[in-house]
Amino acid sequence: MAYSVDYELSDDDENIHNAWDNSLDPILTVEPGEVVRFECRDAVDGQVDMETTAAEFGEVSFDPVHPLTGPVYVEGAEPGDVLAVELLNLEHKGWGYTGFMPGDMGLGLLPEDFEESGYHAWELDGDTGHFVNDIEVPLHPFPGTIGNAPAADGEHDTLPPRDVGGNMDVKHMTAGSTVYLPVEVAGALFSTGDCHAAQGDGEVCVTGIEAPMFVTARFDVRTDMDISQPQFESDHPYTPTGADEPMYATTGIADDLMVATKKAIRHMIDHLEAERGLTRGEAYILCSAIVDLKISEVVDAPNWTVTAYVPESIFP
Amino acid sequence: MAYSVDYELSDDDENIHNAWDNSLDPILTVEPGEVVRFECRDAVDGQVDMETTAAEFGEVSFDPVHPLTGPVYVEGAEPGDVLAVELLNLEHKGWGYTGFMPGDMGLGLLPEDFEESGYHAWELDGDTGHFVNDIEVPLHPFPGTIGNAPAADGEHDTLPPRDVGGNMDVKHMTAGSTVYLPVEVAGALFSTGDCHAAQGDGEVCVTGIEAPMFVTARFDVRTDMDISQPQFESDHPYTPTGADEPMYATTGIADDLMVATKKAIRHMIDHLEAERGLTRGEAYILCSAIVDLKISEVVDAPNWTVTAYVPESIFP
Repeated sequence: MAYSVDYELSDDDENIHNAWDNSLDPILTVEPGEVVRFECRDAVDGQVDMETTAAEFGEVSFDPVHPLTGPVYVEGAEPGDVLAVELLNLEHKGWGYTGFMPGDMGLGLLPEDFEESGYHAWELDGDTGHFVNDIEVPLHPFPGTIGNAPAADGEHDTLPPRDVGGNMDVKHMTAGSTVYLPVEVAGALFSTGDCHAAQGDGEVCVTGIEAPMFVTARFDVRTDMDISQPQFESDHPYTPTGADEPMYATTGIADDLMVATKKAIRHMIDHLEAERGLTRGEAYILCSAIVDLKISEVVDAPNWTVTAYVPESIFP
Repeated sequence: MAYSVDYELSDDDENIHNAWDNSLDPILTVEPGEVVRFECRDAVDGQVDMETTAAEFGEVSFDPVHPLTGPVYVEGAEPGDVLAVELLNLEHKGWGYTGFMPGDMGLGLLPEDFEESGYHAWELDGDTGHFVNDIEVPLHPFPGTIGNAPAADGEHDTLPPRDVGGNMDVKHMTAGSTVYLPVEVAGALFSTGDCHAAQGDGEVCVTGIEAPMFVTARFDVRTDMDISQPQFESDHPYTPTGADEPMYATTGIADDLMVATKKAIRHMIDHLEAERGLTRGEAYILCSAIVDLKISEVVDAPNWTVTAYVPESIFP
């Protein structure tokens, strides 16, 4: 995956914003085909480090969540087009953290089970993250938040994902993947951040392995695709230990898991009809026989992300 | 995985039942450690074949769903114990089918999208299933229904899975897996059937690749485990093309996807606390960093199955 970086964006204050807002001035304008290396802050914007305690984590402010790097204006992208974001490289800075908040804050999947907050600081050593009891978690870094500005005017909270993407927390959007994001405003106004060095499908305690990181991506504008929520291709890795399994995937984003599941499968049926020449009935049957449904995140209230994956290997 | 078969159970009428009922006489009594080879009928009990049309599939009777082979009484299994079912071998008979019913029957994930029924008969050729357009689906056979008799008296529909298992439709319960089922009545009264040659996580159109099959299993009784819903170990395969990834998994079975998701993660936290020496907070954090949530089935009304997987490879 050879590439050269056309632009570097630091994580200095002038490159950071904390809400989706289509009135923000772009910090960079790029042509399709150009490559940008984004420096991204961690999800709580530097309030924690390797020495933070669980009690201290329970006191962090959510005001800066999430600091995003952008927006980038992509020439030629118009509403109704699709922004293709080829993720070329993700680089962590050697540390990260996973924590949960006191239950009365109502965050995460099981706030009713955990009265007190919790916190673990991870030493990130190449492709390995170190947990307690000598447990080693393989790292597959990805941007938790990757999206375009929505058409609706005003400031929008970065916590929930939307039709234009955002905080989808899909762990398979790793380096080597191409993410397709619906464009709702001229130039797309792309931003990213909230990187995770690893995460389980679900992100159940409300944080992955949150880490400051560099994200390098190439942009393209697709006028031949018709999608209503994000989709992506991912070549690797598909398993915790890193086995490759090239996949095409759709997302279903909604405030109810069943509705999100229906959306993910409807989008996959659309994809199989458009790209693989199947009737809708054939596509529905194929989904039942081979397409896998994952709960990518169930914590970014009020919207959950369900994903559906079809392996490329089944096609001639 | 060397084994010798102690008992063969044919799919003759006297070995088949179509409802969970703890008053059924066992057709076989086994000692822990013994191996049984079950012949299992397909889910609609022989009403369809390779020549069936979509319209004919829309007319099949649901009365015989699901024909199960059993029940088997396992000596020493008492309420509160856990039946360990080691799946040794699954053998299809060369054909299977996937279909969906007319939308007005309300079955499957998207009945509102499909007015007419659909049907595909699969030629099953070793490890490959043949679909339209030269699409080839890799086969990883498993029993869609595997469970014990519930404590509640009377006849219980086989469609929904329950705390004792049943129609869980978890695609990773393949040969090489060990399934742990809560025991609610003396002898467990185990039955299985409704085999699938392959299935996507979700089983969205309401059928996997339904196929008559042989299931060979070894039984054991575990008095040292305390589980409230099924759990399992699966060595392989974890990916569509068959990459191994040894996993321990929990199920969450409930009539709401969010509740099922919470159950699956709570059971995983219980497991990590009991078996891996983690505090509940550490386990919650580890779940968020590495445990994957899958929607195993979202069609066996009224109960859905969500599963949570932890890779064995992360432990020292």
